[in-house]
Amino acid sequence: MFRIGLIGCGAIGRQHAYRLRWETGGVTLVGVADFVAEAAEQTAAALGVRAFATGEELIASPEVDVVFITTPDAFHANYVLAAIEAGKYCFCEKPLAPTVEECLQIMEAEVRYGKRLVQVGYMRRFDKDYMEMKRILDSGAVGRPLILHMAHRNVSQPDWFRTEMAVSNSAIHEIDICRYLTGEEFVSGQVLKVRQSTESADKPYENPQIFLLETESGARLDIEYQCGECYGYEVECRIVCDKGMLELPQPATVIQRSKATHSRSTEIMQDWSIRFVDAYPVEFAAWVRDLQNDCLTGPSVWDGYAACQVADSLNKSRGTGRFLPIEMVEKPELYR
Amino acid sequence: MFRIGLIGCGAIGRQHAYRLRWETGGVTLVGVADFVAEAAEQTAAALGVRAFATGEELIASPEVDVVFITTPDAFHANYVLAAIEAGKYCFCEKPLAPTVEECLQIMEAEVRYGKRLVQVGYMRRFDKDYMEMKRILDSGAVGRPLILHMAHRNVSQPDWFRTEMAVSNSAIHEIDICRYLTGEEFVSGQVLKVRQSTESADKPYENPQIFLLETESGARLDIEYQCGECYGYEVECRIVCDKGMLELPQPATVIQRSKATHSRSTEIMQDWSIRFVDAYPVEFAAWVRDLQNDCLTGPSVWDGYAACQVADSLNKSRGTGRFLPIEMVEKPELYR
Amino acid sequence: MFRIGLIGCGAIGRQHAYRLRWETGGVTLVGVADFVAEAAEQTAAALGVRAFATGEELIASPEVDVVFITTPDAFHANYVLAAIEAGKYCFCEKPLAPTVEECLQIMEAEVRYGKRLVQVGYMRRFDKDYMEMKRILDSGAVGRPLILHMAHRNVSQPDWFRTEMAVSNSAIHEIDICRYLTGEEFVSGQVLKVRQSTESADKPYENPQIFLLETESGARLDIEYQCGECYGYEVECRIVCDKGMLELPQPATVIQRSKATHSRSTEIMQDWSIRFVDAYPVEFAAWVRDLQNDCLTGPSVWDGYAACQVADSLNKSRGTGRFLPIEMVEKPELYR
Amino acid sequence: MFRIGLIGCGAIGRQHAYRLRWETGGVTLVGVADFVAEAAEQTAAALGVRAFATGEELIASPEVDVVFITTPDAFHANYVLAAIEAGKYCFCEKPLAPTVEECLQIMEAEVRYGKRLVQVGYMRRFDKDYMEMKRILDSGAVGRPLILHMAHRNVSQPDWFRTEMAVSNSAIHEIDICRYLTGEEFVSGQVLKVRQSTESADKPYENPQIFLLETESGARLDIEYQCGECYGYEVECRIVCDKGMLELPQPATVIQRSKATHSRSTEIMQDWSIRFVDAYPVEFAAWVRDLQNDCLTGPSVWDGYAACQVADSLNKSRGTGRFLPIEMVEKPELYR
Repeated sequence: MFRIGLIGCGAIGRQHAYRLRWETGGVTLVGVADFVAEAAEQTAAALGVRAFATGEELIASPEVDVVFITTPDAFHANYVLAAIEAGKYCFCEKPLAPTVEECLQIMEAEVRYGKRLVQVGYMRRFDKDYMEMKRILDSGAVGRPLILHMAHRNVSQPDWFRTEMAVSNSAIHEIDICRYLTGEEFVSGQVLKVRQSTESADKPYENPQIFLLETESGARLDIEYQCGECYGYEVECRIVCDKGMLELPQPATVIQRSKATHSRSTEIMQDWSIRFVDAYPVEFAAWVRDLQNDCLTGPSVWDGYAACQVADSLNKSRGTGRFLPIEMVEKPELYR
Repeated sequence: MFRIGLIGCGAIGRQHAYRLRWETGGVTLVGVADFVAEAAEQTAAALGVRAFATGEELIASPEVDVVFITTPDAFHANYVLAAIEAGKYCFCEKPLAPTVEECLQIMEAEVRYGKRLVQVGYMRRFDKDYMEMKRILDSGAVGRPLILHMAHRNVSQPDWFRTEMAVSNSAIHEIDICRYLTGEEFVSGQVLKVRQSTESADKPYENPQIFLLETESGARLDIEYQCGECYGYEVECRIVCDKGMLELPQPATVIQRSKATHSRSTEIMQDWSIRFVDAYPVEFAAWVRDLQNDCLTGPSVWDGYAACQVADSLNKSRGTGRFLPIEMVEKPELYR
Repeated sequence: MFRIGLIGCGAIGRQHAYRLRWETGGVTLVGVADFVAEAAEQTAAALGVRAFATGEELIASPEVDVVFITTPDAFHANYVLAAIEAGKYCFCEKPLAPTVEECLQIMEAEVRYGKRLVQVGYMRRFDKDYMEMKRILDSGAVGRPLILHMAHRNVSQPDWFRTEMAVSNSAIHEIDICRYLTGEEFVSGQVLKVRQSTESADKPYENPQIFLLETESGARLDIEYQCGECYGYEVECRIVCDKGMLELPQPATVIQRSKATHSRSTEIMQDWSIRFVDAYPVEFAAWVRDLQNDCLTGPSVWDGYAACQVADSLNKSRGTGRFLPIEMVEKPELYR
Repeated sequence: MFRIGLIGCGAIGRQHAYRLRWETGGVTLVGVADFVAEAAEQTAAALGVRAFATGEELIASPEVDVVFITTPDAFHANYVLAAIEAGKYCFCEKPLAPTVEECLQIMEAEVRYGKRLVQVGYMRRFDKDYMEMKRILDSGAVGRPLILHMAHRNVSQPDWFRTEMAVSNSAIHEIDICRYLTGEEFVSGQVLKVRQSTESADKPYENPQIFLLETESGARLDIEYQCGECYGYEVECRIVCDKGMLELPQPATVIQRSKATHSRSTEIMQDWSIRFVDAYPVEFAAWVRDLQNDCLTGPSVWDGYAACQVADSLNKSRGTGRFLPIEMVEKPELYR
């Protein structure tokens, strides 16, 4: 029974804390921490666990075997590095860190430690439909992927959202899942300028955006990013292969028909936070099995770095009108 | 080149006259007639053909080889009988006649004449999707039909519409197409009383209605009849067989997506008159080929009678709460 | 924290035991029992809980607060009655009991006890799509239900399957969910004889079967039951209402397209045991909340009785060719 | 009644000759011509019209009011120029001509003549679904187009097919229809190199191919071109707008369900020649109406030139890895 301490008691942190406390076998949530002491205390009280004064204290505590990080992105690297230093397993919500530099720093630390300790929370890899696509691709039934079309649509974005975040916060999921599905790295990318939507004329970010990427084998991925109430939260993925095509299904919802209109009657399409909610228990269960086997197999620090590097390169290509090569560091032995 | 005279210049009559005049190979529309002289004259003028004073005159005219009847139902039998008497081929819009007695009278006349002269306008048999269902059924690919589900929904009905007409005017299409698809006659039927829709509380007819039918082999058909603005014009057909299931597709229309709603953007779903509009040219072309071969193969007087007999029996079962046997006359040699 | 003892360590029993042990908040699985001592011991060992010698011992044990029954149907009544006698809450998998007599005996015992203790495992009521249909119906957005079409298809049945079980084991789910969705009881029903499938010519049961039911308000339900490899496991539900129509969606699965064929690529359609697997956690969580509130709201003994009574009446109508009235006992105050 | 002469008695020529002879109101097919005299004679005999010795003779004949050109592409310009010289209306199948130079020559001739005489056979503009998309776009209901995704898939290609033809013969339809739908010209384009399909490893052309285009307003179009038996003939079109999304429906076909597979049961998906077969009568009827009004409104010489210029520019961008500007001549007053 692994004793888990969770750092970061915001929205997703509280959800994960609840899952770890009540719905996950093989682990015990023993305590939480937060930059805001009150937040930690409230969450601790609600779940009947200990509130640690700081994340550092939590990581250092002999009561905590495994660290779970759900803080704002900017604090990820700090706590992940501390966990590695303490030689403790550590689950870090995506992204691993906002900058390539921090990702590389973490990679260096983990490589020095000599063993994978960190898993990054790319939960889509544990969504049953993406997993099924992966299974079919790996089976060879439809041949190799040639062209991938993806779309990511949000209903709205917070005030602090900026153009670059469409890559680094949103499309980074598509970047990761494409790497996972194809088993390939990206070699070049480009952001296409596109006619802007009237729906977000007064917003401080470009909308829509198109991202073009090329993989090692020459397969092409285009990602359409969009934000607007008119669409709802939507994720699309279609993979054109040598012998057939795979499509990610949209979530099944009750159909309400009236006057030649079909309405999807649930709110699932409006809220990103529940689109992949079923993936979390699968993700956590797989992670706990790996902890029990003392051998992590989920998204690694390399995966966290790679997605960050691709996002960074894409953002640098803005305005150049060209495909920029994506230069990645050499992959350490630990991640092969 | 067959010279055609058309009787009945109402809506469907004018449409058919136009088709025969401009869009049908192998025939020439030479004249029209109508109970209302003006209607005939207007249609004749618009199409550049002769206006006959009466249907009888048209049928008798040496200028007319083939008679086309699109009058109100009540006048069908009269003109069909006259055409048979004149020994002329005759296309009669569905239904053949409103009463079993008239259908039998026509059958007797045609049998006496000794050759098929009459084709009844059950155009769904020439719809590409029903034809494809027929082809698959006949191929044996999905085994034999066991259970058939059909639905027929209208947006509205005229003032003179009454409960029984849901069978004799509307569901009669389903009765005919089921006979066509299965190649079987019906042996018993029942109208089920069902909770009535608030949408037609002030209407002089029952709505919705359910019709249950059993074929010779024991296959079961249920037909759901409904009238209401909320649904649009819709025809459904699903056939459950030994080895698979066939479904009639809904017409393809542009999909407009917005806020998790899919709207079908054309008006096709609101208007019965265009749901099967593509079937008419196919129907007419097949009929002309048969005329050229001097051998009719389309829906016959027997088919017209059978549908009428089934409708009649269904309406007689109302209120009995039981399946009534459907007693049909012996099938004349001519129709085997 | 409720201490739960589970009786019946077969397939569904072991699954539920695992869920209660590892994946359900607010409860602790403390022990299991089974008619076969070894089965109980194995399950107990696997989950690290106690093996009771008998179900009776488990029910009587002061270590057990709440009883969970997943034995074969024939033993349900016995254990449920014992649990009521012991004044303990009790969750009993569907059906409550195979006979109307046993259901009535349980109802009498619970009414005598004066408080609801028993919940029956009709898990579809906790499926998100049926719940959404219920929500929409209750909202009035589409008016009242007039006609309900349901289908239930199995890939295969065990050797001991018989004609009547198509109602009492399979369609009983449709009977319950229709009662739940409409809030109405059934007043009459009929089994329709239908042409038999060649796919099960050598089987000791009729296939397919059609069940017709009428609710208090006159709404009509037809259930198509079928068993055959050609279809896969499938549940259909469509509700035609005054102002619109609701349809249960099929589970979303990856679509594999090739040569104008769309294949659903997962096995979900072949296996009943996972079709509603997501409903169990919802069902258990709702039940635990009710235990905490000391007030059950899920499917009751009355619901268990009603489904059994309807199934019984349907089976008695076989061969009569008529709708038989469904006579139910008066509903005790406890269940209103 | 316009007297039509048709030049080019190949496959599409014979089909169009039949349509003009038997199925098109307001015109009479009076004769045909072909480079191969026998082909003209056979077609003439089959349809009961005159066989002209040459296309030139046909164009010059006082019996012919209107010229219809269905020859191989290479001969289009020659006959179109002759028809303009003769001052006769002329319908030319797509493309107007294979080279930009020929298109410009035709444009010059028509402009000199001072009146539109030529219509180019871009039949998709007369497909009901594309027309409906156009109607919705023009209505403003979904805002302005921002991103357009199109795909064009062929089952196979003839021996003489080469890489560039994927643009100039196939995707040229997408180029035209995008111009039609958006009402915009293209300003730049690029062919993306993409991983090649194993299915056509031994073929003398690249497969698949991706074409990227930018319109005047900055809207982005990507066209996926592919050839392979695994897909069937397929045309896709999705338009992402400010306020909603439009999708071209796939043709409705009977659905055959079996073992969780849905097969589309007709061959429509395998054969390009019937995908848009319903568009031809609409196209011809609209053209005849325009002839009667003495004012052409269908696809013009400008449209023929523009599509050719875009295709030419795209093909020139191959291997450059960049978007090339598409330089078009100034639009003559005649086409505004």
